[in-house]
Amino acid sequence: MSDTRPDLGIGMVGYAFMGAAHSQAWRTAPAFFDLPAVPRLRAVCGRNEDAAGDVARRFGWESVETDWHALLTRDDIDVIDICTPGNTHAEIAIAALEAGKHVLCEKPLANTVEEAEAMAAAATAAAKRGVRAMVGFTYRRTPAVAFARQLVASGRLGTIRHVRGQYLQDWLSDENAPLSWRLDKSLAGSGALGDIGAHIIDMAQFVTGDSIASVSGLLETFVETRPLGGQHATLGGHASQDAERGPVTVDDAAAFTARFVGGAIGVFEATRFATGRKNALRLEINGTAGSLAFNFEDMNVLEFFDATEDPSIAGFRRILVTEATHPYVAAWWPPGHGLGYEHGFTHQVVDLVTDIAKGADPAPSFADGLAVQRVLAAVEASAADGTTHTTGATS
Amino acid sequence: MSDTRPDLGIGMVGYAFMGAAHSQAWRTAPAFFDLPAVPRLRAVCGRNEDAAGDVARRFGWESVETDWHALLTRDDIDVIDICTPGNTHAEIAIAALEAGKHVLCEKPLANTVEEAEAMAAAATAAAKRGVRAMVGFTYRRTPAVAFARQLVASGRLGTIRHVRGQYLQDWLSDENAPLSWRLDKSLAGSGALGDIGAHIIDMAQFVTGDSIASVSGLLETFVETRPLGGQHATLGGHASQDAERGPVTVDDAAAFTARFVGGAIGVFEATRFATGRKNALRLEINGTAGSLAFNFEDMNVLEFFDATEDPSIAGFRRILVTEATHPYVAAWWPPGHGLGYEHGFTHQVVDLVTDIAKGADPAPSFADGLAVQRVLAAVEASAADGTTHTTGATS
Amino acid sequence: MSDTRPDLGIGMVGYAFMGAAHSQAWRTAPAFFDLPAVPRLRAVCGRNEDAAGDVARRFGWESVETDWHALLTRDDIDVIDICTPGNTHAEIAIAALEAGKHVLCEKPLANTVEEAEAMAAAATAAAKRGVRAMVGFTYRRTPAVAFARQLVASGRLGTIRHVRGQYLQDWLSDENAPLSWRLDKSLAGSGALGDIGAHIIDMAQFVTGDSIASVSGLLETFVETRPLGGQHATLGGHASQDAERGPVTVDDAAAFTARFVGGAIGVFEATRFATGRKNALRLEINGTAGSLAFNFEDMNVLEFFDATEDPSIAGFRRILVTEATHPYVAAWWPPGHGLGYEHGFTHQVVDLVTDIAKGADPAPSFADGLAVQRVLAAVEASAADGTTHTTGATS
Amino acid sequence: MSDTRPDLGIGMVGYAFMGAAHSQAWRTAPAFFDLPAVPRLRAVCGRNEDAAGDVARRFGWESVETDWHALLTRDDIDVIDICTPGNTHAEIAIAALEAGKHVLCEKPLANTVEEAEAMAAAATAAAKRGVRAMVGFTYRRTPAVAFARQLVASGRLGTIRHVRGQYLQDWLSDENAPLSWRLDKSLAGSGALGDIGAHIIDMAQFVTGDSIASVSGLLETFVETRPLGGQHATLGGHASQDAERGPVTVDDAAAFTARFVGGAIGVFEATRFATGRKNALRLEINGTAGSLAFNFEDMNVLEFFDATEDPSIAGFRRILVTEATHPYVAAWWPPGHGLGYEHGFTHQVVDLVTDIAKGADPAPSFADGLAVQRVLAAVEASAADGTTHTTGATS
Repeated sequence: MSDTRPDLGIGMVGYAFMGAAHSQAWRTAPAFFDLPAVPRLRAVCGRNEDAAGDVARRFGWESVETDWHALLTRDDIDVIDICTPGNTHAEIAIAALEAGKHVLCEKPLANTVEEAEAMAAAATAAAKRGVRAMVGFTYRRTPAVAFARQLVASGRLGTIRHVRGQYLQDWLSDENAPLSWRLDKSLAGSGALGDIGAHIIDMAQFVTGDSIASVSGLLETFVETRPLGGQHATLGGHASQDAERGPVTVDDAAAFTARFVGGAIGVFEATRFATGRKNALRLEINGTAGSLAFNFEDMNVLEFFDATEDPSIAGFRRILVTEATHPYVAAWWPPGHGLGYEHGFTHQVVDLVTDIAKGADPAPSFADGLAVQRVLAAVEASAADGTTHTTGATS
Repeated sequence: MSDTRPDLGIGMVGYAFMGAAHSQAWRTAPAFFDLPAVPRLRAVCGRNEDAAGDVARRFGWESVETDWHALLTRDDIDVIDICTPGNTHAEIAIAALEAGKHVLCEKPLANTVEEAEAMAAAATAAAKRGVRAMVGFTYRRTPAVAFARQLVASGRLGTIRHVRGQYLQDWLSDENAPLSWRLDKSLAGSGALGDIGAHIIDMAQFVTGDSIASVSGLLETFVETRPLGGQHATLGGHASQDAERGPVTVDDAAAFTARFVGGAIGVFEATRFATGRKNALRLEINGTAGSLAFNFEDMNVLEFFDATEDPSIAGFRRILVTEATHPYVAAWWPPGHGLGYEHGFTHQVVDLVTDIAKGADPAPSFADGLAVQRVLAAVEASAADGTTHTTGATS
Repeated sequence: MSDTRPDLGIGMVGYAFMGAAHSQAWRTAPAFFDLPAVPRLRAVCGRNEDAAGDVARRFGWESVETDWHALLTRDDIDVIDICTPGNTHAEIAIAALEAGKHVLCEKPLANTVEEAEAMAAAATAAAKRGVRAMVGFTYRRTPAVAFARQLVASGRLGTIRHVRGQYLQDWLSDENAPLSWRLDKSLAGSGALGDIGAHIIDMAQFVTGDSIASVSGLLETFVETRPLGGQHATLGGHASQDAERGPVTVDDAAAFTARFVGGAIGVFEATRFATGRKNALRLEINGTAGSLAFNFEDMNVLEFFDATEDPSIAGFRRILVTEATHPYVAAWWPPGHGLGYEHGFTHQVVDLVTDIAKGADPAPSFADGLAVQRVLAAVEASAADGTTHTTGATS
Repeated sequence: MSDTRPDLGIGMVGYAFMGAAHSQAWRTAPAFFDLPAVPRLRAVCGRNEDAAGDVARRFGWESVETDWHALLTRDDIDVIDICTPGNTHAEIAIAALEAGKHVLCEKPLANTVEEAEAMAAAATAAAKRGVRAMVGFTYRRTPAVAFARQLVASGRLGTIRHVRGQYLQDWLSDENAPLSWRLDKSLAGSGALGDIGAHIIDMAQFVTGDSIASVSGLLETFVETRPLGGQHATLGGHASQDAERGPVTVDDAAAFTARFVGGAIGVFEATRFATGRKNALRLEINGTAGSLAFNFEDMNVLEFFDATEDPSIAGFRRILVTEATHPYVAAWWPPGHGLGYEHGFTHQVVDLVTDIAKGADPAPSFADGLAVQRVLAAVEASAADGTTHTTGATS
């Protein structure tokens, strides 16, 4: 059953949690969506050949590489998909773009503003040569979030006054949860702030179409040492109290107030200590004409309040974002048959492949990723000196 | 990247809505789960070769057949997956079982009790030869539903008093939604009762571990004629009011009270006219020690009330059924990262492949499907004569 | 601070749970509403003079009587408010009406259809003399319910297809909860059916503006004997397992399907065994143009789905029924400041006093109470013989 | 029906929104609760004699005064209840305390820290003479909030990590809502910050049992001028766009991050511009052993997550705080029969009268009110200079 659509060769670096999500997306997208090109899973790259081989076998990657440089020289690979920790992003992405490969890079774009600036510059240069770069703020592709953006853009919220963003998890609440690479500043850059705070910052800026101009905030590390031995731990777990402990060098939680360029004010929070909140990526926006509320724990729903209606009949509507008229949904199931976490990755593939095929720059761009990085840096600076910091954003 | 696990050849009959769900499941299951055998998508069968070919190309089926009999003679096919309308189930399933093929048959098992009885007998006979049969009540494999069954089985609800089951949709509420095969008694057997009522009956019997002994109910056809031309319509749509109309020969809605063998009483409802309810498969169970509530529109959640707790602190808990300790979940994502509609089909494949490999009879069996069929028939008989009817179930 | 509005003398019979609710209502109504007359709490009547005296002192009743006949001869009393068990309603109400007193009678109107017919006839006769009668289905006066009625009456739901009514409590789930007068058929008439089922039947008929034409149902007594000694128990409690036990002579739960005169179908349930449901008086209505859902446990909210909207933006709205434009609300607090259970009684007083002053017949009338009684009787007859029974309603 | 309990004479200053709530509370408390003394509504005081007289007639106040000084010299008055704008609180309260009258003062305690300090000092001095003072943070007396405090105090939340407090309303979202006294800094002191932010600050400190040590925040006035002529407007309304406009001199919204003395971090927000949020006083607390969530728009519910449970069964429970074992509830209705906004005022009366009778100092004290005032002042200072400010709290 041959497919007449052109091939698009994919090489993926990294193969853990994000690797599985990306692998499933690359092969699912062309089954459900009419793509202009068919992603081919050419190679997965990891230093541990056995582990990478297992991912290859499960998801159908054609080959395994153990050095990412090898991907850049292969003619059958068009896209480099970067799923490694943040400290490696800049080197790989810049090299790939320079080698003429399109790049999909997991978030946060980098661990520092400097790296992110270099990456954004590389992406701008590459775009002139028709080479595309996208950063993986995949929650944008949740249908309810994409639809939220449409509602704001069409004016249904009027002038935005308030943005309330939270990303709440609880997998570090146990003080004996082990130390992992995500708690090591040299690898992860920051803690809750960069890992999950980055998502809610991007989502807020995406849905509002506005940018954070200044912030005032704080960072907190509630548990300063943790049991060693969990370098491979992904999320959670529990170690013996007697285990040797090492220092946590990142924040456990971040909180900040913000002013947007357009005049709205915001309140943001990211934590891994909110017991009972498992993946509560929550966004609430109040405008003069209406309000929105979203919670990823209930990801197929968008709540919308229309403030222009007769007050007797107005109320937050629980919109099931499962209609064929909603973003991405027509390719899937009938109304009321919800989607799950990994569908956002499939939609990311759909958008990236479509943009590559038509020669358009995808969003979120590396510049968008840099903008988020600048907010993160401003929060860190504000937390350090107790004053308000600007991000440099002017529009 | 070869896989050392043995192959299990799959031949699928039918390729529409259910065909897509099943195709994705066959190829996703071995990626996320450690299966004892790897399903191979050998052939998809459909009378329309082009349409079947499109499904084959999208999902990776190796070949296309246009006559289902051909699947039964192919040595590379071990399992026949039946995704066609109910009037064809008996013939295909019985022939497949007799040909030594394992069978997965979509629900409802058949359009009549007589057909279902013949199928159940064929399955019993086949089991003696090591050939397995399963009916596709896939909602059982929603983690929240499977977990609900565990809670009841472990005694957390005590003696069950009340079962409240509803399957509410609204895609026929528009009186100009077109006539489709689902509204033709000769093809579909019944309307809301068999199509969606069957699901809530199976779910109620599965979760409680009990059987419906008698029913008293009514059927209603609110819109007696509909525009022709929608034979290919799946769900919903809207035709011109001027279109020629044909008769709806099935029920639009069904409602019945029930008594369970174990003493509980039940209230059930199935309809495609509940405006605003898109796929509200709702089950609520009250026992002496606790209660459960589930709604497929919020499929990653199970509500549980523990009646043995201090009343001050007791309340319905909204359990996010996304923990690694919940059924099927460990293979997927971290807590709070929900699953979607099609995951149940993947879980169905996991369970079926596992049972085939270990030589066990899978559930729900054709006998379970027959039991549901007998409840459907009792409801129809009760609706016809206005009296209570028994189902024959005694345990 | 004298009030220039005329007086309306009240005499109340009974002083328990309902007596407190009514007392508070009589004195609160003129404080918050502009009534055409001011209720004066002339006398509370109870056989236990001390207990009645305590109620009098707490709520400001001017006197105590121990024989209800005495109230009928007092010139300073205009209204007889009957808060006693159902077996006494007919005698007191008919005598009061014949004595020229307006009557407010708690629900259910009576314990039998025969009594209710006599009461309705007495009310009709009295109305010709300007004497008014009202039955206390007070949940009609919850603002959300009154607003639901307005929405249906204004056509916002279109043609009604489905009515889903439940009244779920759990205070008898404990098999050692003591026997009380509510479980004695000679005093209470029936169990869950008449005590709480009557409310959901009335609410369904009120909100739809339609009548139940036929029913098919079942009754169940899960716990057939209970510890004696709880005659004074109101709701719940727990006795020793060793206590002497007496027979429960009423139903613990009732369930029935229904057909309405206007073509809708209904499913109803009343129980005191739904663990975790404390006062879940739930009504859901689906019409061609929209749907409604209400739950008394969240009594300040009405959910409404507008099926005429663009499907992308449609969803059940959670309307906070606390706007000044909602029924009864303008007299109370600003938006979002909810009301509680007893406010419905205050609204009942407001409507009754207003109708008496303007010479109008109040609703729900004794005829409305009789209609509910006929549905209760049809359910009992259906449960007894397993067939469908009609109620006699034709409009 | 005389009452043998001693009298407690009440004199109330002010008679608007708060006056109605207080009046109803004074007379309802002794009806439902066994109080050690019976409040007697001796006099209501207002400069507008007719308006005050109307309130007196409706609620049963025995007399009307037009100068609050008169209340202080009346022997039949024991308690001065201050319901006037914040700029008058200090003068009246201090004079009353010095005159030996117990004082109940509406919140915020004062418009400045200086005034609040003087009041707290006066209260301390008065307490030595057996004269009591309480500030009216009435939301503490919502049963769900009082129960939340009990849960935290009993250790069910473990060590508190996060406090998330919001008070969201929307009645000023319309830019043509008229200018009222609440928008005039000279009368109201501040805007959303003091009027509603004060409530959420007090609630957070009350429930956690901890104090805010430092804050970093911002204030915003979205609409800088408004139509004149609404001095008597309470909440909301809409004026002509052509009306003459005057300046809004207070904040429309406030947001701040906070550190608590005990190590928790907090995020707070108060606004009257959150369209669709009518009275969303929301508090969420995450501790190492559990979490709580409350929203006044659903005031009879407390959500609780027990983090010590098996993760499979853990979930936020929706506790209906309507059990007899919950604070204040036993005096009211059976489980599931909710309370409303004004019940908190009744509970305030109950606690105050009880404390006066037993010679105890009531809470929240004027010192508690001063603590809130200091947080408000720190937020204002932080908003003015963009740096973090401390409150002075050390325990």
